[in-house]
Amino acid sequence: MDKFKELQQKIVKFRDERDWKQFHNPKDLTLSLMLEAGEVIEHFQWKNKEEIEEYLKTHKDDIGEELADVLYWILLLSYDLKIDVLEALDKKLKKNEGKYPVEKAKGSAKKYTEL
Amino acid sequence: MDKFKELQQKIVKFRDERDWKQFHNPKDLTLSLMLEAGEVIEHFQWKNKEEIEEYLKTHKDDIGEELADVLYWILLLSYDLKIDVLEALDKKLKKNEGKYPVEKAKGSAKKYTEL
Amino acid sequence: MDKFKELQQKIVKFRDERDWKQFHNPKDLTLSLMLEAGEVIEHFQWKNKEEIEEYLKTHKDDIGEELADVLYWILLLSYDLKIDVLEALDKKLKKNEGKYPVEKAKGSAKKYTEL
Amino acid sequence: MDKFKELQQKIVKFRDERDWKQFHNPKDLTLSLMLEAGEVIEHFQWKNKEEIEEYLKTHKDDIGEELADVLYWILLLSYDLKIDVLEALDKKLKKNEGKYPVEKAKGSAKKYTEL
Repeated sequence: MDKFKELQQKIVKFRDERDWKQFHNPKDLTLSLMLEAGEVIEHFQWKNKEEIEEYLKTHKDDIGEELADVLYWILLLSYDLKIDVLEALDKKLKKNEGKYPVEKAKGSAKKYTEL
Repeated sequence: MDKFKELQQKIVKFRDERDWKQFHNPKDLTLSLMLEAGEVIEHFQWKNKEEIEEYLKTHKDDIGEELADVLYWILLLSYDLKIDVLEALDKKLKKNEGKYPVEKAKGSAKKYTEL
Repeated sequence: MDKFKELQQKIVKFRDERDWKQFHNPKDLTLSLMLEAGEVIEHFQWKNKEEIEEYLKTHKDDIGEELADVLYWILLLSYDLKIDVLEALDKKLKKNEGKYPVEKAKGSAKKYTEL
Repeated sequence: MDKFKELQQKIVKFRDERDWKQFHNPKDLTLSLMLEAGEVIEHFQWKNKEEIEEYLKTHKDDIGEELADVLYWILLLSYDLKIDVLEALDKKLKKNEGKYPVEKAKGSAKKYTEL
């Protein structure tokens, strides 16, 4: 089994051993997702490009932990909602290929609707 | 190679073919992460428990796509920051085991600091 | 002078006495706005309707303080961007009157585009 | 009556005429607050300092409208929760005076706990 699935199973097992499913619903789980994303961004707030580069040298583990917290909720949410998120991402990437053909999108920050 | 890593490589390749790295910095990437999490939650806003259950029956693919969008930015961010996010999550889960021992945390919604 | 303007002036004076303008830019200020909104919502996370009602009885001041934190950044942002936010809101309300006529919108949770 | 209170009354009247109170609860209202803050920040994403300055020259009204949207939910939330948010902000500012004395905080980006 690959590591992603393995981690998902660990997270679900962790929750179920603690009988926490009763507190979980999609709205609050997604809220956690959003709030954890907020904790990632706090690392970069009030810093300019150079300060961020400097900061990253010594805070990679902290940021990794925050990113892991975001991933945690994706894994739990997608499990509860019976969504194969890797499959969904693969589909999405194919869509993006169509929306942003290399020849049009290269070097451009425009949204696909403006290309 | 497992699917998670494979998707990460696809995303990076997609970006690099379009020469978009120049627009990317950790602050704005994380902002995307947060804003995409917001798009997930919009599906659940203004709905109560029953309405969410009903909604999920017909909108699983839409929500899957939004979750995929969040995962997209995790993959790109962790690549740019040279963070192994699966490894970071594995570490985090071990930490959580210590913070929330089953015998204390079972059936309780309390934070570990209050257990 | 009305209280809203007075508070705005106090906030600007507070910042300028501390020479903090140098750290302020619209992106990070707005990030604060968003993160503070996140702190408001943490009060309601993992709680159902009844639990929220119960919680509000004893936490009104805490929530008031968080809402004040959100307002703080609106006041500072609108000052820095030379935006009269009360005027902008007044205009917006007029727009909404047109988008959501009483006879059509009454009792309906639909978006104006679907009315 | 001052404009802030006047706008609050207009918003409540607008809602009540449409019988929308039934859809409103503190969790979803606060979510709107957060999502609208996200809409403000989208104006600044993917732009550096110079690009933001340039952008502001022609988009002040758009950003004003987004800030007004954030303020809208503060007004509605504080009304529903019977919170005087201007009073709460005034209190908060007094607290901040104590936390960040000018002599210590001047020119420093440190949090009060580190001063």
